[in-house]
Amino acid sequence: MKNNKAIAVFDSGIGGLTVVSSLMKRLPGENIIYFGDTARVPYGIKSVETINRYAAQITKFLTQKEVKLLIVACNTMAAVAFQTIKDLSGVPVLEVIDAGARNAVAQTRAKAIGVIGTPATINSNAYARAIRLLDSKVKIFSQACPLFVPLVEEGWINHPATKLIAREYLKPVLDEKIDTLVLGCTHYPLLKPLLQEAVGGKIKLIDSAEAMADIAAQLIEKQKISNDANAAPEYHFYVSDVPYRFQAIGEKFLGRKFDQVKLVSLQ
Amino acid sequence: MKNNKAIAVFDSGIGGLTVVSSLMKRLPGENIIYFGDTARVPYGIKSVETINRYAAQITKFLTQKEVKLLIVACNTMAAVAFQTIKDLSGVPVLEVIDAGARNAVAQTRAKAIGVIGTPATINSNAYARAIRLLDSKVKIFSQACPLFVPLVEEGWINHPATKLIAREYLKPVLDEKIDTLVLGCTHYPLLKPLLQEAVGGKIKLIDSAEAMADIAAQLIEKQKISNDANAAPEYHFYVSDVPYRFQAIGEKFLGRKFDQVKLVSLQ
Repeated sequence: MKNNKAIAVFDSGIGGLTVVSSLMKRLPGENIIYFGDTARVPYGIKSVETINRYAAQITKFLTQKEVKLLIVACNTMAAVAFQTIKDLSGVPVLEVIDAGARNAVAQTRAKAIGVIGTPATINSNAYARAIRLLDSKVKIFSQACPLFVPLVEEGWINHPATKLIAREYLKPVLDEKIDTLVLGCTHYPLLKPLLQEAVGGKIKLIDSAEAMADIAAQLIEKQKISNDANAAPEYHFYVSDVPYRFQAIGEKFLGRKFDQVKLVSLQ
Repeated sequence: MKNNKAIAVFDSGIGGLTVVSSLMKRLPGENIIYFGDTARVPYGIKSVETINRYAAQITKFLTQKEVKLLIVACNTMAAVAFQTIKDLSGVPVLEVIDAGARNAVAQTRAKAIGVIGTPATINSNAYARAIRLLDSKVKIFSQACPLFVPLVEEGWINHPATKLIAREYLKPVLDEKIDTLVLGCTHYPLLKPLLQEAVGGKIKLIDSAEAMADIAAQLIEKQKISNDANAAPEYHFYVSDVPYRFQAIGEKFLGRKFDQVKLVSLQ
């Protein structure tokens, strides 16, 4: 395997850029290819069949490129289409749910973990399954938060309405005396300050994007496939649509300038 | 033309069922076919190119059925893809923006109309163009409200967070002394009581779904194509995905039982 092949990261939209941002910091020498299915976002409210069909199309598109590792940054696809993606990929596949679950289990002392995400992620029970595989004694309390994605995309990451909605969504989870809360959606890291305030200082928030970057670094080291070329890394961004306020939102997720984006149509 | 052919209504999702609901009341003898592109909803934040491509696929699908009239219930498609739809249809086409604009111009005394809708609808300026064609002296004040669709789909049609968000979105429009406010999105009729409270009793809200049903009734009468069969009308519902809480949300929009829904995949 050529070490200068890229890491491919994909998501239903541009939320997965939070994972790219963490990877750029953790693995500054690696080439990265990103695909965001912005023409069909959000996946979180679609059916399992439709999500699997779309995930297969994306996997085929990315594995035609020179890639050494696939990262499923979309919690919804990881939750309901991971097997489809693995079967089609031909390279190692990592996904955010496993990463978030590992980090949460390592952090919790009370053995009580909260998980928030889109309806599809929460209904799939994927976090609960991943956490129980690691520690069967941990209690898990889940809550779907369908309004968080549109609130982040509207840019209302510190708005009174977002605070009000966060308090309402989080109340049943907080009543369960959790000490760890998994942010089970790539959009949620942008709400971290607001959510930390809503849950209080004692609850640890688990950012799957950071956990994902750590696990990718471990795999690359273990398999000895790090990019040791001395050239500056190349970043390629593909999307299926260029939607409303795309550039501004993309830069918020990526935490840096977001340019040279290419448009592709998948079918 | 056979009079018992159906009226076809289509939308990016299930919001267009508010138009179907108005048609069922206004034209109780007519057969209706509905298509909602639930696999790719929402359109309101997508690009003009993508919306046109999807609108063409839907028009081709519906015109293969026995239909006598096409109704574009999606404000976003009406705003940016009406010409594409008309070119492909072969039957008369009506759309919600023209319907809402006519009703608003008939109602305003102050000659100052507010329009709220999705970002794509508002950015297209389609309501402003349609209103100015009818009365060039009317002043128009527009506001995109991207959070209203997810709030309605969450079912928070009378929630304190929705009230807070509505006040914030509507403030700049209300500052302009409008006397008429067009609800330029098929989801918004469900927010009517909350929006009426937010704008005060003196501002008239224009529900495009009702306006659309009136205009369809006029066209059917004028063209003498009403269904005079004595059989009970047939209703057929097609969607491209069966998403999260589909049935419950669909029944809210339709205002009655929503069954025998068929799944189709468009490409």
